[in-house]
Amino acid sequence: SGFQEPSPYEAALIPLKQANLHPIRLLFHLGASSIKMVFQSVSFWGLIAAHLLLLVFYYKVSNQHSKVDTATADGYPWPFIRSSTYAGYLGSLVSFCLVFQTTQSYNRFFQQYTACCEILSSSSAFAMGIRTHFPDGAFPDAAAVRTRLQKYLMAQLYLGFTWLPHYKANNLHEWAFGHVSKMGLLLPEEEGKLLALPHSAVLYLEIELLIEDLLFREFARGHISERSHDYLAQFKGSMMNNFDLIYNLAAMPVPFAFYQLLNVMAIGYLALLCYTYISLSYFYSLVPFALTALVTLGLRELSNALADPFGADETDIPILDKVAAFHGFCERVVAAEPSSFEFKPAK
Amino acid sequence: SGFQEPSPYEAALIPLKQANLHPIRLLFHLGASSIKMVFQSVSFWGLIAAHLLLLVFYYKVSNQHSKVDTATADGYPWPFIRSSTYAGYLGSLVSFCLVFQTTQSYNRFFQQYTACCEILSSSSAFAMGIRTHFPDGAFPDAAAVRTRLQKYLMAQLYLGFTWLPHYKANNLHEWAFGHVSKMGLLLPEEEGKLLALPHSAVLYLEIELLIEDLLFREFARGHISERSHDYLAQFKGSMMNNFDLIYNLAAMPVPFAFYQLLNVMAIGYLALLCYTYISLSYFYSLVPFALTALVTLGLRELSNALADPFGADETDIPILDKVAAFHGFCERVVAAEPSSFEFKPAK
Amino acid sequence: SGFQEPSPYEAALIPLKQANLHPIRLLFHLGASSIKMVFQSVSFWGLIAAHLLLLVFYYKVSNQHSKVDTATADGYPWPFIRSSTYAGYLGSLVSFCLVFQTTQSYNRFFQQYTACCEILSSSSAFAMGIRTHFPDGAFPDAAAVRTRLQKYLMAQLYLGFTWLPHYKANNLHEWAFGHVSKMGLLLPEEEGKLLALPHSAVLYLEIELLIEDLLFREFARGHISERSHDYLAQFKGSMMNNFDLIYNLAAMPVPFAFYQLLNVMAIGYLALLCYTYISLSYFYSLVPFALTALVTLGLRELSNALADPFGADETDIPILDKVAAFHGFCERVVAAEPSSFEFKPAK
Amino acid sequence: SGFQEPSPYEAALIPLKQANLHPIRLLFHLGASSIKMVFQSVSFWGLIAAHLLLLVFYYKVSNQHSKVDTATADGYPWPFIRSSTYAGYLGSLVSFCLVFQTTQSYNRFFQQYTACCEILSSSSAFAMGIRTHFPDGAFPDAAAVRTRLQKYLMAQLYLGFTWLPHYKANNLHEWAFGHVSKMGLLLPEEEGKLLALPHSAVLYLEIELLIEDLLFREFARGHISERSHDYLAQFKGSMMNNFDLIYNLAAMPVPFAFYQLLNVMAIGYLALLCYTYISLSYFYSLVPFALTALVTLGLRELSNALADPFGADETDIPILDKVAAFHGFCERVVAAEPSSFEFKPAK
Amino acid sequence: SGFQEPSPYEAALIPLKQANLHPIRLLFHLGASSIKMVFQSVSFWGLIAAHLLLLVFYYKVSNQHSKVDTATADGYPWPFIRSSTYAGYLGSLVSFCLVFQTTQSYNRFFQQYTACCEILSSSSAFAMGIRTHFPDGAFPDAAAVRTRLQKYLMAQLYLGFTWLPHYKANNLHEWAFGHVSKMGLLLPEEEGKLLALPHSAVLYLEIELLIEDLLFREFARGHISERSHDYLAQFKGSMMNNFDLIYNLAAMPVPFAFYQLLNVMAIGYLALLCYTYISLSYFYSLVPFALTALVTLGLRELSNALADPFGADETDIPILDKVAAFHGFCERVVAAEPSSFEFKPAK
Repeated sequence: SGFQEPSPYEAALIPLKQANLHPIRLLFHLGASSIKMVFQSVSFWGLIAAHLLLLVFYYKVSNQHSKVDTATADGYPWPFIRSSTYAGYLGSLVSFCLVFQTTQSYNRFFQQYTACCEILSSSSAFAMGIRTHFPDGAFPDAAAVRTRLQKYLMAQLYLGFTWLPHYKANNLHEWAFGHVSKMGLLLPEEEGKLLALPHSAVLYLEIELLIEDLLFREFARGHISERSHDYLAQFKGSMMNNFDLIYNLAAMPVPFAFYQLLNVMAIGYLALLCYTYISLSYFYSLVPFALTALVTLGLRELSNALADPFGADETDIPILDKVAAFHGFCERVVAAEPSSFEFKPAK
Repeated sequence: SGFQEPSPYEAALIPLKQANLHPIRLLFHLGASSIKMVFQSVSFWGLIAAHLLLLVFYYKVSNQHSKVDTATADGYPWPFIRSSTYAGYLGSLVSFCLVFQTTQSYNRFFQQYTACCEILSSSSAFAMGIRTHFPDGAFPDAAAVRTRLQKYLMAQLYLGFTWLPHYKANNLHEWAFGHVSKMGLLLPEEEGKLLALPHSAVLYLEIELLIEDLLFREFARGHISERSHDYLAQFKGSMMNNFDLIYNLAAMPVPFAFYQLLNVMAIGYLALLCYTYISLSYFYSLVPFALTALVTLGLRELSNALADPFGADETDIPILDKVAAFHGFCERVVAAEPSSFEFKPAK
Repeated sequence: SGFQEPSPYEAALIPLKQANLHPIRLLFHLGASSIKMVFQSVSFWGLIAAHLLLLVFYYKVSNQHSKVDTATADGYPWPFIRSSTYAGYLGSLVSFCLVFQTTQSYNRFFQQYTACCEILSSSSAFAMGIRTHFPDGAFPDAAAVRTRLQKYLMAQLYLGFTWLPHYKANNLHEWAFGHVSKMGLLLPEEEGKLLALPHSAVLYLEIELLIEDLLFREFARGHISERSHDYLAQFKGSMMNNFDLIYNLAAMPVPFAFYQLLNVMAIGYLALLCYTYISLSYFYSLVPFALTALVTLGLRELSNALADPFGADETDIPILDKVAAFHGFCERVVAAEPSSFEFKPAK
Repeated sequence: SGFQEPSPYEAALIPLKQANLHPIRLLFHLGASSIKMVFQSVSFWGLIAAHLLLLVFYYKVSNQHSKVDTATADGYPWPFIRSSTYAGYLGSLVSFCLVFQTTQSYNRFFQQYTACCEILSSSSAFAMGIRTHFPDGAFPDAAAVRTRLQKYLMAQLYLGFTWLPHYKANNLHEWAFGHVSKMGLLLPEEEGKLLALPHSAVLYLEIELLIEDLLFREFARGHISERSHDYLAQFKGSMMNNFDLIYNLAAMPVPFAFYQLLNVMAIGYLALLCYTYISLSYFYSLVPFALTALVTLGLRELSNALADPFGADETDIPILDKVAAFHGFCERVVAAEPSSFEFKPAK
Repeated sequence: SGFQEPSPYEAALIPLKQANLHPIRLLFHLGASSIKMVFQSVSFWGLIAAHLLLLVFYYKVSNQHSKVDTATADGYPWPFIRSSTYAGYLGSLVSFCLVFQTTQSYNRFFQQYTACCEILSSSSAFAMGIRTHFPDGAFPDAAAVRTRLQKYLMAQLYLGFTWLPHYKANNLHEWAFGHVSKMGLLLPEEEGKLLALPHSAVLYLEIELLIEDLLFREFARGHISERSHDYLAQFKGSMMNNFDLIYNLAAMPVPFAFYQLLNVMAIGYLALLCYTYISLSYFYSLVPFALTALVTLGLRELSNALADPFGADETDIPILDKVAAFHGFCERVVAAEPSSFEFKPAK
C-alpha cells in the first residue's frame, strides 16, 4: 500500500509516449535546441547555398576581385551596393526588432508557464482545503463528497489541458476523455451530457459548473459554512483565471502582421547581405555570413518556440506528466484523515 | 433541440458581414498585413519615385558618377552630404524610437485584448454564478429573475462594445440597439429610458444600474444571501473595470505630440536617405532603399494598427462574433438546472 | 426637463476658458506639438545660428575646403576633431539615454492618466452604489443622505484636482472653492472649517473625513448594513489611492540629477556636432544638423511634456471638463429611483 | 490655538539640520547634481590628466603626428590600436550596460519612493480610521485609546525610518529614540522593553506588536466590531509590507558582482579611449574625451545615487520632515470630533 | 536569560559552515565577483591563448604586416575577413542579446529574492498573529497550541528551503531534517509520516497540511473566531505562493534553447574576433581583445549566477542564517504575553 514512483497515474502515460505522438510539446522542458532547428531549416541552407553559388560565379566564372567598399564603382561589371546603404540604420532596425520580438516571446512563455504552475498550485490548495473542510465525521457522506470533488478536480485538469486547440487538433482530447472515463472521474450521466455539448465547448468551464454546483449545494445543506465555501471557491476562481489566460493566449498568437513584418525584415536583410558580402572577403565571407544567418534565424526559431509553448514542434507530454504526478498527491491528501486531529497538546 | 453551430445568435451577424461594413475592425484576428498596408501607402511609392527620379537626373541627365563617401566634395556640382552627418547618432535615435513605439503599441494592443477577454470571462463567471445561486426551487420566480439577469448581461455586452467611439461613428451602435430590442433583451420601458438619455451617455454604465438594482433588490427581499450578492457583484465589478479600461484607452490614443514627432522623424530621415543614397551605388541603391523604406513604414503602420485595435481599418466584426458565440453558452448555462442537484452519493 | 448638452456644469466652465488661464494644462488631450515647441525654443535656433556662423567663417572668411575624415590633420588651421572620437560610443550613449528618458516619461504619463480615469470610475461606482444602497423608502431622510454624499463627492473631485501644486500656483484652487461654494456642495460651517485649515492641507483628504464620518454614522444608526458600508467604502479607498498617487508624482518630478545629466549630455553632444559638422559637407550639413537637433530637442520637450501632465504649458482645462461632465451624470444617477424596483417578473 | 507652519514637530528638526548631520540623505528631494559629483571624483580628473599627459608626450616629447585610423601601422613607434578593435561591439556593449544599470536604479528609486509614500498614505488612512471608529461617546476611554494608537503610530514612523541601516550607522536612531521619548509617544515601561531588545531587532516590528495587541484587545472587549478591527488592520498590513520592502532593499543593494563588472567595464573602456584618442585629433581630442568621461561617469554616479536613496551622500533629512509634517495632521485629525455627527439633514 | 547574539539557533549553523559544504549558495549576499569567475574560466584563457598564438604565427612565422581594413585582399596569403562582414549588424545583435539576457537574469534574481523575503515577512506576521489571537487566558492549552504552531512554522521554513532541488542534491535536506528533529519542532509520529512519503514529496506542502488542520480544528472547537482563522490563514497562503514561486523557478531554469543560442552566439563571435583582430593592430590588439572577452564572458557568468541564486557555485548558507535569526525572533514573540494587555489608559 505504499506510494510507488512512478505512481500508476504516471505509468498510464507510458503508452502515449511510446506512440510518440508527434505534435505534443514540452512546456515544462523546452529542451529543444534552436541551433538544431536552424540547421534543419530550409531558409538557412538556402541562404548558404545562394551565397556560395554567388561567390563561385563572382570569383571563378566572372573572374572578379574582392573589392574595397570605398572604391569607386565605375567600370565594375556586377551591381555594386555600398555598405553605407544597408549597414547602419537598417542593420540596427532589424537587430532591435529581432531582440524585441525575443523579449516579447520570452515574457509570453513565462506568462504561460506561470499560469500552468498556478493552476497546479491552486489545485493543490483546493485538495488540501477539501481535506480540512470536509473532515470524516462532520456529516454523513463527507468522505464521499470529498472524493467526488477530488475526482471532478482531476477530470478538470486532464480535460482542461488537453482541450487546448493544438492538442485537440491532434486528438489528444479524445484520448484524455477516454482516460478520464476509464478512471471513473466523472459519473456516466455527466459524461453523456459532456458528449452532447456543441463542438466549440471548452470542458474546463463545463466541469467547473459541476464543482460549483456541488460546493454550493453542500453549503445550502449546511454541511460547510459560508466561509469554508468561499475559502474553497477562491482556489477555483484562480484556476479559472489561469485557464482563461492560457486559452486566450492560445487563441491570440503573436499578431500575424507583426510576425510577417519581422520575417520579411530578417529574410530580406539576410538576402541583401548574401549578395553584398560576396565582394568583400573572397570565399572567407562564408564564415561571418553563416554565423550571421545562424544567429538571426536562431532568434526567429527561438521566438516562435517560446511564444507558443503548446505548439506543434516537440514530442513529449510533460503537462500530462505533471497532472499525473499531481493525481497521486491529490488522492493521498484527500484520502487521509486530517493529521492534527490526533494531536493531543500536553498540559 | 440540440445546439447547432453556428448558433442562431452567430447566424444573426451574417447580414452585417455581407453588408461589408467597412470601418469595423478585427481585434480578435488582426490578420492584416502591414506589408500590404505599406504597399498601398502614398508615402512609400512617393519615396521610391523620388529616389528613382533623382537617380535618373543624377546619372542620366547630369551625367555624374557614383561617389566614394571619403572623397572630397570639391568640384562636385550636386550638394554632397557626407554619411557621417546622418548615419551614426541620428540613425540610432530614429531606429530606437521606432522600436520603442512598436513596443508601446504591442503592449497597448495586448492590454486591450486582455480587457476584452476578461469582460467575457467575467460574464461567463457571472452566468455560471446566477445559475448556481438562483436555483429553480429557491423562491418563486427564481427562474424569471435568472433569465432577466442573463438578458441584461447580454444587452450590456452587445451595447457595451458597440458604443465604443469608432463603432458609434459608423452607426454600429444603432444596429446593436435594434438587435437587442428585437431579441427582447430589455423591457420596453427600459428601452424608452435609454433612448431618452443624453447623447454622451455610455450604455454599459446605464445597464449596469439595471443589473445592480435588481441584484440588490433580490438580496433586500431575502432571495439571496449577502455572500451570494457579493459573489455575483464581484464579476460585475471586474466587467466594469475592463469596460472602463477599453473606453479610457479609446479616449486617449497615443499622444499626438509623440505620434507627430515620430512621423516627422521617420519621414525626414527617409527623405534624407532618399537624396544621399543616389551617389552611393548607381541605380542599385534602389534595393536597399526600398527595404529600408518598407521596414520603417511597416513598423509605423504596424504600430498604428496595434495601438488602436478598435480603429477604422478592417472589415470584420469579431468582437460581435465572440459576443454572439457567448450568447449561446450563456443561455444554455442559465437555462439548465444545476447539475449536481441530481447527484446522489453512494453510501 | 431633459438633459441638455453641454450640461449647466459644463457650461459653467466657459468663462474660465474665455479667460484663457494660461498655465492650465490638458491631461486628457495633450494635443501640443513638440515640433512646435522646438521651433519656439532658444536652444534650437541658437544651435542652428551657431552652425551657420561657423560655416560662413570656415568657408567664406577662412576659405577652408570641406575635409575628408580620414585625411591627416597636419597643416590644418582649424582644430580638427575626428568623428571616431565622438560618433560611436558617445553617440550611442546619448541616443540610448534620450530614448530611455522618453520611455520613462511615457509610462509616467499613462500612470497619471490611468489614476485620473480610476478616480472618475470609482466616483461613478460610488454614485451608482449610493443610489442602490440608500433607496428612497429605506429610512427617513434616505434621499437627503444620498444627496449629501453626492455633493461631498463632487466637492472632493473639484477641489481634489485643483489643489494640485501647479493649479494652486495659478490660483485655480480659489476659483474652484468659490465654484463649489456657489453650487452649495458643502455646508457653510464645513466651508468655514476648511478655510481655517493650515495652508499645506490637501482638501481631498479633508473632504474624505466628511464622507467617511457620514457613511459610518449611517451604519452606526442601522440605516445601511456593514456590507453596504464596506461596499461603498472600497470605492472611496480606490479614489484615495489614486489621488495619493497623483499628488506623490506631482511632488516628485523626474529627479533633478537625472534631468540635468540628460540635458548636459544632449546639449553638449549637439554643440560638438555643431562644430565638427562644418568641415564635412559644405553648407549642406545644415540639413542633417537641423534634423538631428530637431529630433534630439523634440524628444527632450516631449519627455518634459509627458512627465508632468499637470504642468504649466497649455491652455485648456479638460480635467475640470471631465469633472463637470461627470457632475451631470452623478446627479442624474443619484436622483433617480432604482429602476428595477418597478420591474415585475411575469409568472 | 491655530496650526502654525511649520508645526512644532517640524520645528523640532531644526537643530538636527543645523548640526548638518552629513550622511543623511534626501529621498524626497534628490536635488544633488551628478555633474557636480563627477567633477569632484578622482576617476574623472585622473582620466583627464592621463589623457593630457599622453598627448604632451606624444606630440611634444615624441614628436608624433596625428594619424589616420586607416593608415598602416608599420614604422609607427607607439603601439597603435585601430578603432575597429574597440569601437563597434565593445562600445555598444558598454553603453547598453550603463543604460541598463541606470534603468534598474531609476526603477529601484521609484519603488522605494512609492513605498515611503504608501507608508505615509496608510498612516493617514489609519489615523482617519481611528477617528471614525473610536468616536468619543462610543465607550469610556475611547479618546484615550484613540490617542494611544495615534502615539504608537507616530513612534512607529519615527523609529521605523531611522532604524534603516544607514541612519543607524550614523546614530540617527538614537536621536529618534530620544525624540520619541521626549514627546511621550511610548509608555516608560514600553521604552524599557524596547531598550532591552537584542541589537538586531527592528523597531517597526516591535511597535507593530503594541498596536496589534491593543487593537485586538479593543475588539475582544467589544469596543469595536470585527469589521472595524479588520478595516483598521488592513492599513497596518500595508504599512508593514512597505516597511519590509524598504528594509529588504536596503539589505540587498545592487549585487556586488554586477556593480563590479560595470565599473571594470566603464573604467577599462575609458582607459582604452584615453590612450587610443591621442593619435586622432591632436590636443583637440580633449573635448570629446572629456564629454565622454563626463557622461559615462555621470551615469555611474547617478545610478549609485538613485539605487540607494537612503545612502550616505547628502545632507538633508526630508523623510523626517515628512514624518514631522504628518505628525501635525495626525494629531489634528485624531483629536477632532467626527465632523458629520453635527450635520442635520433637512427634511 | 537575555538574548545573546548570535542566538543559539544561529550558532547551530557554525559546524555546517566549517564543513564548507561546497555547493550551497548565498542568495542574500551574492558577493561573488564575476571578474574572478571569468579569470578562472577555460573559455577566457583559451581565447586569449588562441589570439596570442595566431599573432605569433602571423607576425613572426608568416612575417605578415598589419593590414588596413580598406586595403584590397589580393595577394594576401592569409584568409582576410573584412570588418564590414561582422562588425555592424552581427555585433549589435550579439551585444543586444547579452544585455537582454542580463536584464532577464537580474529580474529573475530579484523575483526570487523578493519571494524569500516575503516568506520571512509572512512568517513574521503569522508569528505576531498567533501571539495576539491565542492569548494565554483565552482557553486551556492556548499557550501549547501557540507553541505548536510556532514549531510547525519553523520546521516549514527549515525544510522548505533545504528541499530545493539543488540543496537536496547536496544532502542539505537530510541535515535539515536531523536539525529539525533534534530541536523537537515536529512530533515523533509526524516525523515518521514524513519519512514514509514518496521521494518526490515537497515538505513545505506536507507541513502546511499540519498547520492548516490544526488551525481549522481550533476554529471548529471555538477557540478562535472565523475572522481570526482567516486572518492567520492569509499569511500561510502568502507563504505557499512564494514557496511555489521559488520551486517553480528552480524547476524551470532559463530555457535551454535560449541559453545555448546565447552561448553559441557569444563564443562564436569572440572566436571570429580572435582571428580577425590579428591583422589590425600588431600585438597590441591583445588589450582590446582581452577587454572584449572579459566583458562578454563576464556578462555571461553574471547572468548565470543571477538567474539561479540557489545554484551550485558558492560556499555560504545565508538563507539558513536568515531562518536561524528569525527562529530567535519568532520564539521570543510567541512566548511573550501580549504587551498592551497590561496597559491601563488613564481616565
